[in-house]
Order: sequence, then structure tokens, then C-alpha cells
Amino acid sequence: MGAPPGYRPSAWVHLLHQLPRADFQLRPVPSGFAPQEQEYQQALLLVAALAGLGLGLSLIFIAVYLIRFCCCRPPEPPGAKSPPPGGGCVTWSCIAALLVGCAGIGIGFYGNSETSDGVSQLSSALLHANHTLSAIDHLVLETVERLGEAVRTELTSLEEVLAQRTELVAAARGARRQAEAVTQQLQGLAFWRGVPLSPLQVAEDVSFVEEYRWLAYVLLLLLELLVCLFTLLGLAKQSKWLVIVMAVMSLLVLVLSWGSMGLEAATAVGLSDFCSSPDTYILNLTEEETGLGSDILNYYFLCNQAVSNPFQQRLTLSQRALANIHSQLQGLEREAVPQFPDAQKPLLSLEETLNVTEGNFHQLVALLHCRGLHKDYGAALRGLCEDALEGLLLLLLFSLLSAGALATALCSLPRAWALFPPSDDYDDTDDDDPFNPQESKRFVQWQSSI
Amino acid sequence: MGAPPGYRPSAWVHLLHQLPRADFQLRPVPSGFAPQEQEYQQALLLVAALAGLGLGLSLIFIAVYLIRFCCCRPPEPPGAKSPPPGGGCVTWSCIAALLVGCAGIGIGFYGNSETSDGVSQLSSALLHANHTLSAIDHLVLETVERLGEAVRTELTSLEEVLAQRTELVAAARGARRQAEAVTQQLQGLAFWRGVPLSPLQVAEDVSFVEEYRWLAYVLLLLLELLVCLFTLLGLAKQSKWLVIVMAVMSLLVLVLSWGSMGLEAATAVGLSDFCSSPDTYILNLTEEETGLGSDILNYYFLCNQAVSNPFQQRLTLSQRALANIHSQLQGLEREAVPQFPDAQKPLLSLEETLNVTEGNFHQLVALLHCRGLHKDYGAALRGLCEDALEGLLLLLLFSLLSAGALATALCSLPRAWALFPPSDDYDDTDDDDPFNPQESKRFVQWQSSI
Repeated sequence: MGAPPGYRPSAWVHLLHQLPRADFQLRPVPSGFAPQEQEYQQALLLVAALAGLGLGLSLIFIAVYLIRFCCCRPPEPPGAKSPPPGGGCVTWSCIAALLVGCAGIGIGFYGNSETSDGVSQLSSALLHANHTLSAIDHLVLETVERLGEAVRTELTSLEEVLAQRTELVAAARGARRQAEAVTQQLQGLAFWRGVPLSPLQVAEDVSFVEEYRWLAYVLLLLLELLVCLFTLLGLAKQSKWLVIVMAVMSLLVLVLSWGSMGLEAATAVGLSDFCSSPDTYILNLTEEETGLGSDILNYYFLCNQAVSNPFQQRLTLSQRALANIHSQLQGLEREAVPQFPDAQKPLLSLEETLNVTEGNFHQLVALLHCRGLHKDYGAALRGLCEDALEGLLLLLLFSLLSAGALATALCSLPRAWALFPPSDDYDDTDDDDPFNPQESKRFVQWQSSI
Repeated sequence: MGAPPGYRPSAWVHLLHQLPRADFQLRPVPSGFAPQEQEYQQALLLVAALAGLGLGLSLIFIAVYLIRFCCCRPPEPPGAKSPPPGGGCVTWSCIAALLVGCAGIGIGFYGNSETSDGVSQLSSALLHANHTLSAIDHLVLETVERLGEAVRTELTSLEEVLAQRTELVAAARGARRQAEAVTQQLQGLAFWRGVPLSPLQVAEDVSFVEEYRWLAYVLLLLLELLVCLFTLLGLAKQSKWLVIVMAVMSLLVLVLSWGSMGLEAATAVGLSDFCSSPDTYILNLTEEETGLGSDILNYYFLCNQAVSNPFQQRLTLSQRALANIHSQLQGLEREAVPQFPDAQKPLLSLEETLNVTEGNFHQLVALLHCRGLHKDYGAALRGLCEDALEGLLLLLLFSLLSAGALATALCSLPRAWALFPPSDDYDDTDDDDPFNPQESKRFVQWQSSI
């Protein structure tokens, strides 16, 4: 039979998991997931710090490039209006960089939605597991109450009716004992009762954090899109102030991109360590948080042929006790009803209760079986380790593309700006009207210039 | 208890489902999903035909626009090189249209991947259901074989050992009868045996079709991306032959876009009808295909409190028979083993078999419960009616955007083309070198022209 096909670590997980890790003293750190250990935290911080290093390097590069551009220009012959050579190249490279940035933004939107999908899959699996666990509790409670009620009322009145025949009273007492045994066994099955960990709470926390993460990325993406579009507009309209404002904004977005890249890289590396062998970590964590026995947790988290059902004994005993109650009630119906017609009503009511209890028992067997909960566990892992990790890597690609594009744009913008004609040459009033004759003349010049 | 939260039709489904439908004679058609009825097929074909109408209208519009442009131009004064007014507007509108087309392509890629996600969710749910159904078959077969083997060997040898005491032989015969009863009841539980419909086959067919659909869309998207980029390049380099080739390609992609729009619209409308109330249609179809009783299908497809478990009776009888076998074996162990030590070995072996059978029985109860299969059904519906439909609507948006963008581009391209300088003015050799002085002069002209 076997469990349904479950979670397998993807190639990305293996790849990221194999990257070397080091702590602040650059000693190698094992790549097992251990977020509580200081060394491992340092390794992740170091990964994030690499992005800081990248930011520093790209800022230094931009600064050096611009200083060289400003200070080391060959002296122009006075009065000559010819621009420095390579002007077309500079503007076109700036436009190409901004287009690459826009493509990166598209990838970022896709990655953000992938990550969001993965996390929502995780939280819906948690909600489903919570549903199963509370259904077990509820079903046990309901069945125990119903059996207890039947023992208190129908079995007592049956014993009163049959009081004259001791062997029949003994049979009724036997049924009572079996019912009490079933009650006791069933109560042991509600294993999640009183456990302090609530999957519902975890799912709500995860959704809450994810909502803000998603929103923050959407805002970052929109900000970068606006910067790209307005920079293109500034270049096209040769508006100096727009280009200056957008250069400053580009610098801000560059810092944000490198910052988000650091967060994404550290999260991706940590997630890959978790995802390469999640069972052990999750087992230990759940054992700590819930205080449940390792047999139960192993059963649900591994759910294979090698792990036996920890409730098997209780289920078998309950099942046998229910069958015994049934045969005792059948015996009583055969023996007692002809002699004591009053016994028929409580007997029929008891059989009805027994049927319902057997139905509930089958539901309980189905709910307790590891299949359902293990499937939720697999879905949660797939959401986190496939979709969310994939989305995270796409976001990393977005950050990388946008950092490169913005750095190129920042290098090119001042050079393109220097090529703009002085503003007194530039008539701003009729600039928006493509139908004015001046505009048409310009268009022809543009057409023949490229 | 209740089933876990299942599938609910989305707002898109409601919206699309409420659109009016008509057949070829324009008589209204009810919007219930009935793909086998001719009227309904006609309604879907009519939806697809609307896209053909759109294609025709846009082709007529383009033709009229271009004929008017070619034939009704005011005569130019001979020798004057000034272009018609509005030239800049034409080229910029062409560029804007192509950029809108590129944004549409991004949406198309996203929609294609959403649709693919939804369909793969559907086929993985089908695979999971197939796994459950074959596990039930396999488990029943294994348990029945194991019980039969025990009856043939251990119970026979036990009866031979106990041949001297008729009441013990009678107890062993009782156990045999009960075991045979269990075998018979269990065989009735393998409800999917011999059913001609295989979810595995359906999943494979669905994946096969989806693979080609996905590939076709990726090719269409890449084709349109190439057309957009090369048209932009042609405009920037003022290459007449590139613009002409791309205009022809744009016409081809325009036809493909309208064609795909028709397919998407008809599929989306049909899917919304299916998704607004899938249970009835799926129930009828499965009943026809499998020949299974409606009680079993209702149990799995609805899985709520109102539908009782159709296997409840069989399960309860098997459970009681197993408990009876257990008590008879216990009695034999108490009575027979002191007198016949040879009886111990077959008795122990029988108890072992009984324990395994009870374990298998609990697995079977869990597998037969509607929870698992109903969850797969819900996942399949969510994949098809949420993700796939959403992706389809995004693809529809892509087709709409690209049809609009390409029509605008087709109207603008010849006008922009007419503005290009005659090719003898145009020196092709040093065009690619932005560092040559001519290029720099052109760049300044361009800078001051826009």
C-alpha cells in the first residue's frame, strides 16, 4: 500500500544546500538547519552581509566612474557645441538598462505571487490539519458522551426491568462494563486534547507575516517601475530636473534592492537547509512544543510501512468491546424480550446507540489514520520548499537584475544629462504638442539621427 | 464533524455563468453545462465566432485606414522634404502600442503558467485518487488471500488436532465460518475492481493535452515578443525591409491572437458553466462511465452528514466477525491447549493473522472513508475552476491586449515607414558605430528633436 507520493527535495534545494557556509571567523559551519545555534545564525547573517558588500562595491564603482567622468574630461574647445563622443551609446545603454530593469520587475511580480502561493498552500495545509485534529477531539467527546448517556439511562432501566432474573442482569452488567471499557479506550485516542500548539494559530501567524511581506514587495516593485518609467520619460523629454530626481530615487531603490537581495539570499539558504531534510527538525520541534510521544509523531510525520499505528491496540480493543456489547444485546433481545416486553424499548435504543457508535468509530479510525495528516504535512512542505523557494529565487533574480540595471542607469544618467542642450535653448511650452511644426522638424531630425 | 472546507465557485465563475448564451438561430440557451447537447455546442461556437467577427472588423478597419492613408493624402509640393504633420505622434503611438503588447506578453506568460498549475493540480489529484482506489483493491486482495490461506492451513490442521473433542472442533468450525464471512464482506468493499474508468488514464490524457497547449502558447508568446522587439528595432534603425517583414508577421500574429481569443473565450464560458455546479454533471458522468451505484458516488462526491457511508453495514459485520473469531480463538486457547499442546502453534499463527487482518481492516476503513477521495475531488475542482480559469482569463486579457496593440501597430507602421528618409540618403555601413562623428552629430539632433 504505502503512503501517497510525498515531498522530495528539489534540485534547487540540493544546489543551495551544497553551498559552503561560514561563521564570522570564517570557520566552516555544517549546513544542517539549526536556527537556534549561534554559528548557524552567523552563517546566515554572513550570506546577508554579502549583499551589503555588493551594495558597497557598486556604490564605490558608481562614485569612481562619475568622479572620473566629471573631473577627467578632455578640455572642450571653447564655443564648440559638439558633444563628447559616445553620447548615443550612453543614452542607449541607459535605456537598455532600464528595459532590463522592467523585465526584472515582471520577474519580481511573478516571483512574489509564486511565494505567496506557496505560503498560502502552507497555511491551508495547517488549517486542514487543524480541522482533522479538532474533528478527532470532537468525535471522541461526542461518542463518549453518547455512550455514557446510554449507560446511565437505558442500561440502568434495562437492569431494573430484568432485576428478577440474575443471569440476564449479569449480561446487562457485562454490556455496561464493555461500554465503560470502550469509553476509556476512546478517551485515550483524543491525543491532541490539551496540547498547547495550535496549527490554526500557526497558520494565522504565517498568513499575517506573509500579507505584509507581499505588500512590501508589491510596493518595492511599483516604486521601481515608476522610477524606470519616469527616467525613460525624463530622457525622452530631456527634462533635467526629472532626470536628477530619478537619479536620486534610483539610488534609493538600488539600496532597497541590495537590502532585499540580502534578505532573500539568507532566507533561501536557510530554507534550503530546512527543506533538504525537514523531518528530523520538525519532529524534534513538535515533540518539544506538544509533549506528544515520539511514536505518535513518527507515525504521522513518516507514515510508512515501517512505523506501526500507535492507536492500533486501543482501536482493536474498542472494536472487540463494541462487538461484545452487540452480541450481549442480541442475547438479551433473544432471551429477555419474550418474558419482559418492557425491556424492548431500552434494548432497541441501546442498539441504535451502538450503531451510531460503530459509525463514529469508523470515522475515528479514518481520521486517526496517518494518511490524511501526512498528506497535509506533504502539502505544507511542497508549498514551502517548492513554490515559496522558487518564488524566492525569482525575487533574488529580480533584485540582481534591478541592482545591475540601476547601477548602469546611475552611471549613464549623468553622462546623458550632460548631453542635454542648455535649458535656454529648450522651449518648454509647446513641447507636448506633436503637431506643431517645430516638433515635426525635430522628428525628422530624430528620424535621420539614429 | 463535517467534511473539510471544499470547493466554492469563485466570483469569475458566477460572472461568466450569468452571461447570456444563444444558439445559431439566436434563441437563448440555458447556461447549464451540457456539452453533449447541440444547442449548447452551438452557443459555445457562437462565443468563439465572436472573436472571428472581431478579427474581421479589425482587418476591415486596418484596411480602410491604410487605404485612406495611401490614397487620400494631400498632394505634397514637389521637392519639399517636410513630412506630413503628426509624424512624431504616429511613431510614438506605434512604440506605445508595442510596449502595451509586451506588457500583454508578460501577462500571457503568467496566465499560461497559472493555467498549467491548475491543470497539473487536477492531474495530481486524479493520480492521488487513483492511488487510493488501487490501494483499496490491493489491500482487500491481500487481506482476503491471507485469511483464506490461514483458513486452508492453520484452521484445517487445528481441526485435525482437535478431532477427538467435537465441541472444540465445532468452535474451530465456527471460526472458519466467521473467517469466510469476513472474506465475503471484504470482497464487497473492493468497489473499484473491474471498473472501466481509470483516473490514471484520465490524468495522463489531461497532462498530455496540457503539455501541447502550454507549448503552443509559449511559442505564440515568443513569436509575438520577437515581432514586438524586431518592430521596435526596425523603427529605431529605420530599416524599411525589417518594418515590412514585421508588418506581415504582425498580421499573422494578429490572426493567431484573435483565434486564440476565440478558443479561450469559448473554453472560459464552458468552464464557468461546469464550475458553477460541477457535482451533478460529474455524478452523472461517473455513474455512466463506471456503472457504480449512486449511493457510493454520492458518498464520495458529496461527503457530508446527510449521506451515510454505503460500506457501513459491511464494515460493521466484518468487524463483529473479526471480534467473534478472536473470542473463539481465545476460548480454544483456554480449553484446548492444556489438553492438546500441538494446537498451540496453529492457534498462535491464527492470532497473528487475525492481528494483521485487524490492522489491514483499520487501514481499509481509513481508505474507504470519503474524506480522502473527497479532498482529491475538491483539489481537482479548485485546480480547474480557480487556477486554470484564472489563467485562462489572463490569457484572454493577453489576447485582447495583443490584438489591440498589433492592430494599432499595423495602422501606424506604414505611416511611420512613409516618414523614413529614402534609402539612398541612408548610409548603412557606419550605422552601428555610435562613436563615429556622424553618429554623434545625429545623436545631438535626436536629443534636441524630441
